[in-house]
Amino acid sequence: MSEYRNMTKEELLAEKETLLKKFDEFKAMGLNLDMSRGKPSKEQLDLSMDMLKPIDYTEDGFDVRNYGLLDGIKSCKQLFADLLGVEAKNIIIGPSASLNLMYDYICQCYCEGVLGSTPWCKLDEVKFLCPVPGYDRHFTILEHFGIKMINVPMTSEGPDMDVIEELVKDEAVKGMFCVPKYSNPQGITFSDDTVRRIAALKPAAKDFRIVWDNAYCVHDIKDEGDTLLNIFDVLGDNEDMVIEVCSTSKMTFPGAGVSALAASDANIAQIKKRLNCETISYDKMNQLRHVKFFGNVDGLLAHMKKHAAIMKPKFDMVIEHLENELGGLGIAEWLDPKGGYFISLDVMNGTAKRVGELCKEAGVTLTTVGATYPYGDDPNNSNIRIAPSLPPVAELDLATQILCTSVKLAAIEKLVG
Amino acid sequence: MSEYRNMTKEELLAEKETLLKKFDEFKAMGLNLDMSRGKPSKEQLDLSMDMLKPIDYTEDGFDVRNYGLLDGIKSCKQLFADLLGVEAKNIIIGPSASLNLMYDYICQCYCEGVLGSTPWCKLDEVKFLCPVPGYDRHFTILEHFGIKMINVPMTSEGPDMDVIEELVKDEAVKGMFCVPKYSNPQGITFSDDTVRRIAALKPAAKDFRIVWDNAYCVHDIKDEGDTLLNIFDVLGDNEDMVIEVCSTSKMTFPGAGVSALAASDANIAQIKKRLNCETISYDKMNQLRHVKFFGNVDGLLAHMKKHAAIMKPKFDMVIEHLENELGGLGIAEWLDPKGGYFISLDVMNGTAKRVGELCKEAGVTLTTVGATYPYGDDPNNSNIRIAPSLPPVAELDLATQILCTSVKLAAIEKLVG
Repeated sequence: MSEYRNMTKEELLAEKETLLKKFDEFKAMGLNLDMSRGKPSKEQLDLSMDMLKPIDYTEDGFDVRNYGLLDGIKSCKQLFADLLGVEAKNIIIGPSASLNLMYDYICQCYCEGVLGSTPWCKLDEVKFLCPVPGYDRHFTILEHFGIKMINVPMTSEGPDMDVIEELVKDEAVKGMFCVPKYSNPQGITFSDDTVRRIAALKPAAKDFRIVWDNAYCVHDIKDEGDTLLNIFDVLGDNEDMVIEVCSTSKMTFPGAGVSALAASDANIAQIKKRLNCETISYDKMNQLRHVKFFGNVDGLLAHMKKHAAIMKPKFDMVIEHLENELGGLGIAEWLDPKGGYFISLDVMNGTAKRVGELCKEAGVTLTTVGATYPYGDDPNNSNIRIAPSLPPVAELDLATQILCTSVKLAAIEKLVG
Repeated sequence: MSEYRNMTKEELLAEKETLLKKFDEFKAMGLNLDMSRGKPSKEQLDLSMDMLKPIDYTEDGFDVRNYGLLDGIKSCKQLFADLLGVEAKNIIIGPSASLNLMYDYICQCYCEGVLGSTPWCKLDEVKFLCPVPGYDRHFTILEHFGIKMINVPMTSEGPDMDVIEELVKDEAVKGMFCVPKYSNPQGITFSDDTVRRIAALKPAAKDFRIVWDNAYCVHDIKDEGDTLLNIFDVLGDNEDMVIEVCSTSKMTFPGAGVSALAASDANIAQIKKRLNCETISYDKMNQLRHVKFFGNVDGLLAHMKKHAAIMKPKFDMVIEHLENELGGLGIAEWLDPKGGYFISLDVMNGTAKRVGELCKEAGVTLTTVGATYPYGDDPNNSNIRIAPSLPPVAELDLATQILCTSVKLAAIEKLVG
């Protein structure tokens, strides 16, 4: 089949007829399939059940069931230090969600400022740079605090650094969220050059902060995964500029994992001071369970291979459908990521919302179209985030067929009505 | 022995000699005893180990190991609704510490205001009423946000309501923290009349909020505990004024319990909206573990009787020492609470800090003297918080003897040098 834009009106209408027939068949199945969020599947959750076997809840003679140890138990801090390539003193173990660590950090900047700077709540305008498409929950945090979001386009190497280097000359630009490895939703890993340029930024704002959301740091799907330069190795004098977070949400249990934050001594000190008001300690029993379950970083990486084995067939199937059904039509583009949780699909400009509607009509829930952009506003109305992890393979097969059919139908509607 | 103030200088110096000899014997023991925080003892932590036995992590077919259910699982919301006497829709299940719920709520008022009011961060001055002596961590939160704290004296019925009714006429007074049952540190339960007067307050500030920290709601020690009027039953039109919190920190595991917040529909809606930015969900596996362990409120109350059996001998021992060693000397006052975690000891004015020093010298750690007052400033330098829960009985025996000796020594130093 040739590209849609090269087909005649008659050819397109005939194609539409075929697609509508197929679409009606899907609808008749009364499906309820969910590809909206990066939820691990039941099979993946089952991988970590051994974590719950009875253990001795003491470490170095300290009863972790009781109060204390604000920044986490020693062994858990070491595990994350090894994972992220920093010293244990630069680690704080957090609650079950790294989102909570990020929200709390932005909230702290808003309420009290950054290492002595003016609190952001006292400024007339605060802006953040948002690589797009990006993670909706980052945008939600920023919007909650009234922080103005500025789109920065992603390239295959990470966010467009020429644009960023220009924008940080504005003193009102106070920071940026990044998902540097297997970015959400595109699955792009920032190149070494991008990481170096980010690390070398000299923003006008002294209180410029990058939240380095390394959510998918060990979430390879292909045998040969991407590698990400450790930004703390190249920050030099800029070490206070980056706050890194990660979690075991997609290693063990999304609702009951352990999160961690890595930062410079100065940032850790400021965060700990606030934490001392905010809580007594996070769940140290859960921290110890995780340490005993993984053993060390090698054990953690071995565990992630089991996840990959479950995820790979799902990603392969989606990519195969996209290639077979949308390849060569000139109406959609996508990347084939080596890891992470998402496949980002760019459909014909102006049709993404319609694709979402059609999918919904046929019983497939996608991430709300537009959510991958600040304010839910995708200027091209073209980006769709596919989350293949949750549905069983058979359902995913069907859901992707429905998605591809919807992408074609929406394109034809756009081209010939 | 007569009251110290009626003794001659010679008698006091002789007494001092005796005390110093005793004190030196204590010091020679090289002790390291901790009565500083309300930490449950190992025996108490062991009471809940059955909570950790393997369970099925689904509820109503929902896999609680995965993302979702922002405000908690249904059964856990119901458990706390029954415990606090409110509807399940008015409950949010939080993280492991209710302190976190309180911090986050004050932070929300600071950042975004109360149900549409001006954010507190935009106001020139925000004041809070602080019943004293009180809980240091409440004061820490308020100080963190630059909220000015005003002391309100406690009476045997709760905070002095005449004072409060006067102070709330100031529009800058935005709220109050209370521990209404077995108050920290005095163990006073607010009388029905006090609760009714609080519920009927008509503060000048429309955004006045009471954080009702019901930390010890079921923490009786004596067979016949106090009863607290359910403030939500008497709030009437004032229902938005109170945010109640509690937790299982002192029921199961302090580091890994479940907290809950109860509030009006309007407040719940505002808090949920913020939570939706802040986290994906709290630890639902832990919520389910708690529900399966307690079964229902009756099961929870039966469990608390086991705690009481461990706590009672400790409280009895402290009170007995206080009566035997300090009774009739006119240099100390205390209450004998029916529940909670603390005994509040008022020593001779101007001597509390010295008592703390002497205890430390002999190897006993008390809560930092002054901490029971805002800014760590006890105007009379007289209040000491005793936390009898953590030390084993034999250690507690010794620690209380040291405390009593120190109280007497400090008084004599004050009287005759």
